[in-house]
Amino acid sequence: MIDAVDLTAKLVKCPSVTPEEGGALVLLEQLLSDAGFACTRVDRGGISNLYARWGDKGHARTFGFNGHTDVVPIGRIEDWQHDPFGAEIEDGFMYGRGTTDMKSGVAAFAAAAIDFVTQTPPDGAVVLAITGDEEADALDGTVALLDWMQSEGEQMSVCLVGEPTSPDHMGQMMKIGRRGSLSAWFTVGGQQGHAAYPHRALNPLPAIARLMDRLASHELDSGTEHFDASTLAVVTIDTGNPATNVIPAKTSGTVNIRFNDAHTGADLSDWLRAEAAKIDAEFGTTTDVQIKISGESFLTPPGALSDLIAGAVKAETGIAPELSTTGGTSDARFVKDHCPVVEFGLVGKTMHAVDERVEVAQISQLKAIYSRILSDYFA
Amino acid sequence: MIDAVDLTAKLVKCPSVTPEEGGALVLLEQLLSDAGFACTRVDRGGISNLYARWGDKGHARTFGFNGHTDVVPIGRIEDWQHDPFGAEIEDGFMYGRGTTDMKSGVAAFAAAAIDFVTQTPPDGAVVLAITGDEEADALDGTVALLDWMQSEGEQMSVCLVGEPTSPDHMGQMMKIGRRGSLSAWFTVGGQQGHAAYPHRALNPLPAIARLMDRLASHELDSGTEHFDASTLAVVTIDTGNPATNVIPAKTSGTVNIRFNDAHTGADLSDWLRAEAAKIDAEFGTTTDVQIKISGESFLTPPGALSDLIAGAVKAETGIAPELSTTGGTSDARFVKDHCPVVEFGLVGKTMHAVDERVEVAQISQLKAIYSRILSDYFA
Repeated sequence: MIDAVDLTAKLVKCPSVTPEEGGALVLLEQLLSDAGFACTRVDRGGISNLYARWGDKGHARTFGFNGHTDVVPIGRIEDWQHDPFGAEIEDGFMYGRGTTDMKSGVAAFAAAAIDFVTQTPPDGAVVLAITGDEEADALDGTVALLDWMQSEGEQMSVCLVGEPTSPDHMGQMMKIGRRGSLSAWFTVGGQQGHAAYPHRALNPLPAIARLMDRLASHELDSGTEHFDASTLAVVTIDTGNPATNVIPAKTSGTVNIRFNDAHTGADLSDWLRAEAAKIDAEFGTTTDVQIKISGESFLTPPGALSDLIAGAVKAETGIAPELSTTGGTSDARFVKDHCPVVEFGLVGKTMHAVDERVEVAQISQLKAIYSRILSDYFA
Repeated sequence: MIDAVDLTAKLVKCPSVTPEEGGALVLLEQLLSDAGFACTRVDRGGISNLYARWGDKGHARTFGFNGHTDVVPIGRIEDWQHDPFGAEIEDGFMYGRGTTDMKSGVAAFAAAAIDFVTQTPPDGAVVLAITGDEEADALDGTVALLDWMQSEGEQMSVCLVGEPTSPDHMGQMMKIGRRGSLSAWFTVGGQQGHAAYPHRALNPLPAIARLMDRLASHELDSGTEHFDASTLAVVTIDTGNPATNVIPAKTSGTVNIRFNDAHTGADLSDWLRAEAAKIDAEFGTTTDVQIKISGESFLTPPGALSDLIAGAVKAETGIAPELSTTGGTSDARFVKDHCPVVEFGLVGKTMHAVDERVEVAQISQLKAIYSRILSDYFA
């Protein structure tokens, strides 16, 4: 029997601020190897990742867990009441960076998986794909693991991401999808001139003002079956011209879009470029558009996998979790291209905050939920 | 007979970069005193100004000249081919800072005034109101002279400002008015939040975008009898938010308006504040508006004074000057509250430029025009 609370504490004591491995993956690799998992370090671009499989490669019934051991920086140490890497327990809470996001989640699924395969070896496989880069660029994290799996013929039939998913209390919410995210940088070019003679200049500012007004006023959709409405936020407009008698040559603006399954990053990019082109046609300006798609939206429609997770949560907590698609991005956006994926984990309240903490009892409860999911899946 | 070319050279050799007096007003005071002018130094706030009157105080026929001896900085000395304070003459041109703007103008009207009152003493008075601060803030320049005149019972029946007025050749243009200028700084406040949840924040950027689009799209007027259309230029919008996942709490924008006699600074300020209030009502934002009116528009309608000037210009140059209201601001914007004012002077081409220069022959021609204006006025 692996103690998930003890394992969480050991992981919290590893200072694994992205991109540092900090000993966390080394510790897990040892533990999983000892339990009979075939482990492979899938490091790429300075990032450490760990792939662990129990059972046959490519088995048609392979249950996968995905999570990360890297954590965000602690910020100002003076602001903390507890050692950020101390895993101190006080009044039923364990304190430290990563206690919630998401070393407890990794500890819970690792402990559940080890106990399950050693006590009741299933006819199938259990995979743990654990990354050291979810919090930063995520370019060489879960993506590296999935790339490597594909090239090696490794696979997961379904995947559960162990990120915190509940806003307030345990069991409240699971995620069956996430909105996509895209940022676009517009630079509108005109021609400099004297403010007293605007007809001799070409002012880019009225153009960017109208463009941003139009983009912000446009209703992308009114929500879909499983998603809230997509949103567009203008996050900055900048010019940097201190002279009131000068019309500037250039100005820039940035928007961020969170989009549901009514859109793709490519469709939205086309729309943004078309709006910029319309503005250029109206004003005579020249607008450059740079777009970065951080993630497409994804949805695993309610069905066998979500029923499995919801059933286990209900059995352990008495609560039927809401099937949600809210929140930012997670590594599920990468996994969804490989197999059905859902997310379930702890209460996320103190994620990234000073004195991040987890209720100790919830770690054991989470392990129990993950254990039940495994036994139900292979039943 | 005062040699206006020689006097220009002496003035150019005085390094009177605002706010330095540089010896220029001391020289003029001596010269004018010797010719029988009652001179008073009207210094204020570190700025030197000179008031000189020939004839009786408050005479109903008082012809006034206004001009300035301060000059803008020379910029990089390496860029000059000639000593900026040397008044070197080469190929018929005198070089130096202020040769055009406007030591030649001051020299021409001082020489014309001295010769006129000494050779043909008129039944009336001639006033010279010369400031040492036209190029900078102009808070303690011509305004200080006019304030002092009012408190002392001094007056001008009409006033000619000797600034350069012609774009290309001598006699081409006089100014009977100028547009006003106003700048407005808008700061739009909302509420910061995460870009993924715009409904929990209040984004000030769509508000400023629409405000600036509306202001820029609004036609202030289509011109008046003597003026081109008023213009509004958005000169900057700034936020300074580098994070694409953050909706900022604040953003700001600035507009500059050049307005004709269809408007006043106060009316335009009311309009700008009303537009900001409309935006706040639409978006729920809180917009602060700071306004600075640099000058009201002014117009001295064509009539006796402009006929007098135009007639003298035509007689001396053979050219009937255009009665224009184009260009930036000048001290005429202050004088217009006291008496009818028009502007006539040299070709302004090299004002504020490196190797500023004046055609030597034009200095004498300008003195001849000013002399004829005086004799016509008192005829």
